[in-house]
Amino acid sequence: MTARGDGSRLAPTADEILARASRAFDVARATPSARLASWIDAVSHTLEASREVLVDIADDETSLGRARLDSELSRTTSQLAGFAEAVREDRLGFPPIATSRGDSSPHLNRIMVPLGPVAVWAASNFPFAFSIVGGDTASAWAARCPVIVKAHSGHPRLSREVFRLARHALDRSNAPADFLQMIDDRRLAEAVLVHSSTAAGAFTGSTGVGRHLFDLAVSRPDPIPFYGELGSVNPVVLTHDAFIARGEEFAVGFVDSLTLGKGQFCTKPGVVLSTDGVELAAFIGRAAADRALGRLLTPNIEDAFHQAMGSIENEEGVVTVRPARLADGSWSAGFSLVEAALVVHKPELIREERFGPHALIVSCSSDNEVLEVLEVMDGMLVGCIHSQSLDGPGVRDIVDILVRKSGRVVWNGWPTGVAVAPEMQHGGPYPSSTSALFTSVGLDAVRRFLRPVVLQDFPEPLR
Amino acid sequence: MTARGDGSRLAPTADEILARASRAFDVARATPSARLASWIDAVSHTLEASREVLVDIADDETSLGRARLDSELSRTTSQLAGFAEAVREDRLGFPPIATSRGDSSPHLNRIMVPLGPVAVWAASNFPFAFSIVGGDTASAWAARCPVIVKAHSGHPRLSREVFRLARHALDRSNAPADFLQMIDDRRLAEAVLVHSSTAAGAFTGSTGVGRHLFDLAVSRPDPIPFYGELGSVNPVVLTHDAFIARGEEFAVGFVDSLTLGKGQFCTKPGVVLSTDGVELAAFIGRAAADRALGRLLTPNIEDAFHQAMGSIENEEGVVTVRPARLADGSWSAGFSLVEAALVVHKPELIREERFGPHALIVSCSSDNEVLEVLEVMDGMLVGCIHSQSLDGPGVRDIVDILVRKSGRVVWNGWPTGVAVAPEMQHGGPYPSSTSALFTSVGLDAVRRFLRPVVLQDFPEPLR
Repeated sequence: MTARGDGSRLAPTADEILARASRAFDVARATPSARLASWIDAVSHTLEASREVLVDIADDETSLGRARLDSELSRTTSQLAGFAEAVREDRLGFPPIATSRGDSSPHLNRIMVPLGPVAVWAASNFPFAFSIVGGDTASAWAARCPVIVKAHSGHPRLSREVFRLARHALDRSNAPADFLQMIDDRRLAEAVLVHSSTAAGAFTGSTGVGRHLFDLAVSRPDPIPFYGELGSVNPVVLTHDAFIARGEEFAVGFVDSLTLGKGQFCTKPGVVLSTDGVELAAFIGRAAADRALGRLLTPNIEDAFHQAMGSIENEEGVVTVRPARLADGSWSAGFSLVEAALVVHKPELIREERFGPHALIVSCSSDNEVLEVLEVMDGMLVGCIHSQSLDGPGVRDIVDILVRKSGRVVWNGWPTGVAVAPEMQHGGPYPSSTSALFTSVGLDAVRRFLRPVVLQDFPEPLR
Repeated sequence: MTARGDGSRLAPTADEILARASRAFDVARATPSARLASWIDAVSHTLEASREVLVDIADDETSLGRARLDSELSRTTSQLAGFAEAVREDRLGFPPIATSRGDSSPHLNRIMVPLGPVAVWAASNFPFAFSIVGGDTASAWAARCPVIVKAHSGHPRLSREVFRLARHALDRSNAPADFLQMIDDRRLAEAVLVHSSTAAGAFTGSTGVGRHLFDLAVSRPDPIPFYGELGSVNPVVLTHDAFIARGEEFAVGFVDSLTLGKGQFCTKPGVVLSTDGVELAAFIGRAAADRALGRLLTPNIEDAFHQAMGSIENEEGVVTVRPARLADGSWSAGFSLVEAALVVHKPELIREERFGPHALIVSCSSDNEVLEVLEVMDGMLVGCIHSQSLDGPGVRDIVDILVRKSGRVVWNGWPTGVAVAPEMQHGGPYPSSTSALFTSVGLDAVRRFLRPVVLQDFPEPLR
């Protein structure tokens, strides 16, 4: 019995869903690491074995293209395999910083225990890697937490197929199939989030929806952690020396990064800051010209982008080269040029995330103005600086403020293309995430679903 | 200039307080570890040097007694010294679980950065260890976060004196004195918590006040972490074999733990569960008789305890031996005997924390009923089991549920007397704390005030 709202059965209630999740949790808690790892591996292998079918469906349902979808599926299966390996090698024990010296009294053994069932919201823009069995699900599983995932309406058939395959793989591994449940209905997902048996939530999506869910999670009679990856406006600073040395090359790289995924990544470089703004805008305009980017993810996203463009175009003091909607429904990239003083005066210009292939070029009259603009920006996932030297004017101050406001700072590089490396930090100050103390990418993501318990003076066999 | 509301100067506004804290933060962020450690050490030494004066004032203002106050001051100064040592030895870097193998691209260096100014609420029941420069302040400092502490009204002179000494010590160490600020006013403290420059809150106190502050912190435009240690009802399970072997000895140990600090510890064993409830009640009654415990902490706490006693005394089905208020205003310990079935039917009986020297003895008709009662209990700081063997009936199930519901589980011991050991976990599921993923005691407490940032492809000198 599944939690599908496909009409083939009466949709289950939140109580029923959590009763199943709790039973699966009891089994998972008592399962040795090697076994748990084999469950997660089985899901990874099953998706690999169905690669062609899955990419076909995803290609049918999204505009991302087979190459990207293929590599995203690889990322997803290797993410699962990576967590399985960490579980098998018992690397998720998270010992304390230090332990008592010698034979201290009392004897304390700190272990990490899973929180309980986790509600996960799939994202629109990563139909594999942040969806049914994406990073949130994989890391919750590695902590022994069953997952109830809210499928994204942007890729319903793919969600159902991945869900079917994953349940089948769990079942064949003698895992409780309810280690994964799926929901289509938004209201039911919210009922799951506020259910007393649900122990945490994880979300990737818009600031509006994410904040709404965060508010539900923290206003429960017993608040639970809610890990939301919301919106982020990610700046790239170009110093004057770097502009002189390689301004045109920078512009090409910037547009490449901006248009990756058609500007629909949370790591999109939405803002560039430069003391050579006007000349840089010319370079960027040239680099962006004639790039047909295809359709955006969903009609809703296209509408929202259209509106955001209309609104920025009407801003006084902002010169906008609007992304063109080509005859085939495809988009080109666009950008707006604005002076720093206006942004400082009206920070909402730079705080709004415009999801899609558009960037704000902020023309600064001094290095100091670069800092002033960064200062009015909200928390961000990632900030970048391009500079020829470490000691250039303002460089240390720029790095300092980027460290203070973000979860990742890139030197002479681009924010897109998050390396799925064990030490990655994906999550910065609000609103880029609801809890900057944790990451949603990399092995440490499992920490979100574990808590420490100390066993005091326990006899050896029970420790 | 200080944030004292003592009328000698105009009280500062939250804006002024946070402007000072932010300047202190800028200095602290740029301060090498050895220097930071010397600041914290200086505060510890200064308090040691003023031990007699401080214990005098504390003895004047509280009913805790010199012996307890003396050892609590020792705990406080050694806590500060312990964090200073960890800072000096750079043990607070918290590397990720794993790092990329070999020369991977991109190069990622994960560092931990401080969150920013922290608002701390002092507790009534630990005038040193959870007050002006208690564990919350020490761990925030170790993370390089300046602290604004709300003094508790239960010991105002002591708070002012500790504050004065700490500021003086900071000043002589060439630290910014505003690394520590103090507030007396409740409303001003709340304004500080919701100020945009405040990055976290930490609190030890009642569930009501703690939840109110938590709600303020998470409903900000940019929610911040709020680490609250709220109320906790901590159960002790006595198995039948342990009752047979040492029931009377258990009763004495239980009353010792119950009356430690006159029942005013968050770790007080508020509930005992036994299949030999009536006989155990007789033992406990005997052990508790004629213990004059002195006054409770404050008149407010005495009133609240008086009310709670009146309310439980009137409960049908509950037999209460009310704590007696002796002629000198002192209290004896009291307890109530109740059958498990009634508690399962009416869980609020066991969920309410009765701050003071009183415990609920729950008489269970079977091991299964012990589990049923534990199941209706809220999250707790600590749970204990007394058993003669690992394989006795229900033992593994009892341990399992205590692990699931608490932050610490004690075998054949008592919940009070939290060892200030590096691996301690002090914090369990709600309401015992607002974030069970963190501890407020032990070196790992510093984690609450740090977040990871990845430096990507940074040149060596800037990493």
